[in-house]
Amino acid sequence: MEIQFIEGGVCAPKGFWAGGVHCGIRKNREKKDLALIYSEKECTAAGVYTQNKVKGAPVTVTQQHLANGKAQAVLCNSGNANTCNADGEFIANSMCQAAAKTLNIDPQKIIIGSTGVIGQPLPLQPIVNAMDQLKSSLQTGAQGSDAAAQAIMTTDTKKKEAAVSFLIGGKPCCIGGICKGSGMIHPNMATMLCFMTSDAAISGEMIKKAVKEVTDDTFNMVSVDGDTSTNDTFTLMANGLAGNPEITGPGKDYDDFKAGLMAVCRRLAREMAADGEGATKLLECHVSGAPEKQTAVKVSKAVITSSLLKAAMFGADANWGRILCAVGYADAQFDIGKVGVTLGSAKGTIEVCKNGSGVEFSEEKAKQILLEDEIHIDISMDQGGGEATAWGCDLTYDYVKINGDYRT
Amino acid sequence: MEIQFIEGGVCAPKGFWAGGVHCGIRKNREKKDLALIYSEKECTAAGVYTQNKVKGAPVTVTQQHLANGKAQAVLCNSGNANTCNADGEFIANSMCQAAAKTLNIDPQKIIIGSTGVIGQPLPLQPIVNAMDQLKSSLQTGAQGSDAAAQAIMTTDTKKKEAAVSFLIGGKPCCIGGICKGSGMIHPNMATMLCFMTSDAAISGEMIKKAVKEVTDDTFNMVSVDGDTSTNDTFTLMANGLAGNPEITGPGKDYDDFKAGLMAVCRRLAREMAADGEGATKLLECHVSGAPEKQTAVKVSKAVITSSLLKAAMFGADANWGRILCAVGYADAQFDIGKVGVTLGSAKGTIEVCKNGSGVEFSEEKAKQILLEDEIHIDISMDQGGGEATAWGCDLTYDYVKINGDYRT
Repeated sequence: MEIQFIEGGVCAPKGFWAGGVHCGIRKNREKKDLALIYSEKECTAAGVYTQNKVKGAPVTVTQQHLANGKAQAVLCNSGNANTCNADGEFIANSMCQAAAKTLNIDPQKIIIGSTGVIGQPLPLQPIVNAMDQLKSSLQTGAQGSDAAAQAIMTTDTKKKEAAVSFLIGGKPCCIGGICKGSGMIHPNMATMLCFMTSDAAISGEMIKKAVKEVTDDTFNMVSVDGDTSTNDTFTLMANGLAGNPEITGPGKDYDDFKAGLMAVCRRLAREMAADGEGATKLLECHVSGAPEKQTAVKVSKAVITSSLLKAAMFGADANWGRILCAVGYADAQFDIGKVGVTLGSAKGTIEVCKNGSGVEFSEEKAKQILLEDEIHIDISMDQGGGEATAWGCDLTYDYVKINGDYRT
Repeated sequence: MEIQFIEGGVCAPKGFWAGGVHCGIRKNREKKDLALIYSEKECTAAGVYTQNKVKGAPVTVTQQHLANGKAQAVLCNSGNANTCNADGEFIANSMCQAAAKTLNIDPQKIIIGSTGVIGQPLPLQPIVNAMDQLKSSLQTGAQGSDAAAQAIMTTDTKKKEAAVSFLIGGKPCCIGGICKGSGMIHPNMATMLCFMTSDAAISGEMIKKAVKEVTDDTFNMVSVDGDTSTNDTFTLMANGLAGNPEITGPGKDYDDFKAGLMAVCRRLAREMAADGEGATKLLECHVSGAPEKQTAVKVSKAVITSSLLKAAMFGADANWGRILCAVGYADAQFDIGKVGVTLGSAKGTIEVCKNGSGVEFSEEKAKQILLEDEIHIDISMDQGGGEATAWGCDLTYDYVKINGDYRT
């Protein structure tokens, strides 16, 4: 199947509108802080959410709203996570009601999200007051998606959106998404806010399956700082306007849909890692030859989560002992004596460890490789067919700076 | 039982000598890099070691040597971990042989340790050449312990030693120890190099039990950066010269011995956390009211391991949402709705969260409290009697600096 990346983010699929405004949750008037995504037609929809026992109020409300597998709009603010507030659910529900009234739809059909500081009351009034303006800001096409993507950013330095086009049963379909990441990023079952759209026709059961399967290989393989957020939410709405025969079970059409979704999510996951708080480099760790996939998952995540390795990568220091150390404390059973490590980037590749021991290598060449801004860490385990890829970033002065005084 | 902290570190117990020299593993001639601890009399001994699948060669050799529960000396170098080297065990065994020859004891009676960079060959010759000088450096009393404690330091900024005196069966007994920590500190069953001594008489079985029990409540509750080292080793040798009736089973004498050991280990664990790489603050997290102890352990460790919280503490920012977030992703079952958080230091205490939600508090007072260099995070769970304390440190620019280019 051919998958083509296209412009337009969440508005690439037919029938989707998006917009964003500054409503006043953030002090900086230049920064949009309220986003809306709207489908002309009711969608099948599914979501995955944080596994943190502290759940943001919007997560709880969205879970309730998506219980019937239907949705038509996404409302999301940045600047405040609406989490650990005694009146959090009331606020989240009131936000849904305000949007529902403006859009003239059922509040149950709204997916709600919030991101920002935890434990500070979220004022309702600015959001309610901005609702008409927010509706007026809705646009189709790239500009609509851009405004929504901007409005959900927190410490992100780049907006994150992607979309693909491909055929299902001969009909061109699109999947698009926007997301934000940056800090408190170590998704478990979901990720810090990713909203996706599609014009494919797909049943509630199959969209749920696709979302779960793709999340495990993409967003759940990203870590910026090992902290699993309280508000991780990934939702996908599909409105069926592409006109393909509805996907109601496994088979080629489902596989094609999943491949399209995987392509978008993979790109967004990489962008989220590359734009981790303070990051200067994307780290991609690929593990192959593991006894089973789960082992490859644990090893690759242990490596990209290691503070010591992340700091070494910031310094472009080929301190591979830290990679092997992290491989060694991954919670899985395997023979460390067969493990090899190769470092790579646009500047080439270099083997640094073989059979669990160091090999001689040119420090100078390693330095050149590690000075690039996208680093590949390839770990060959030579004891099976398990494979996984995880994405992370380096640990820098700016991570400390950003988080030393995030609230001011 | 009365426990008194005394001077003398590993040389506080009767019959123990210690020393340290610069043998040439490190380039800086001012820095000692080889330590020796020697008991006049054979000791019962026990150790706990890293659970990392990558094990330093000295760990493997020490495990073999302590299999019979006997030891008489510790030899340890800094500057090189002798880990992930194809000839690592040969080198470690040769080091034991050189020391055994000089001390005129069986090589099996030597506990061997190495700490420093992973995966670079450890040259044997400088160590062998320095052996006579090292033996000559042995002293009893505080100076001997000081030299050994200096010689095992890596990025530690302060030497770490402690000793206590107390009575067992009416006889004054001592337990003393030296340790090093700083980076790659997230001990699992053991810690980055801690060597302890005692003049108490205690059987092999009971010393093993004491070491295991005390480790779980002290060194295993420390984290600097979440990275479990390949060389973690904690050993205790007891030579019986105090003349107490040998401890051969449970009872008051064992409890007294364990209390003494706990006091020394607790102090060293705190010092290790406070001197974590780049740290400016000690973080002590005390969890009470957990459904069971294991839950308290997981929650307290999740909190002191959170990069986001550690960075907030560096900035003296009372961002308690990050504490609750970490509590929420701890791998245990409990009711988050009953959790409260209080921050404290020498400047006072302040409640910031109750029943899982924020309470109003003075940011100014919180700032004053958090500007101190020892911060207490008290988490009350109000759902049982489980309790635990964990120690960590803040995440600072200097951590990134130290680890961005550790090898040069």
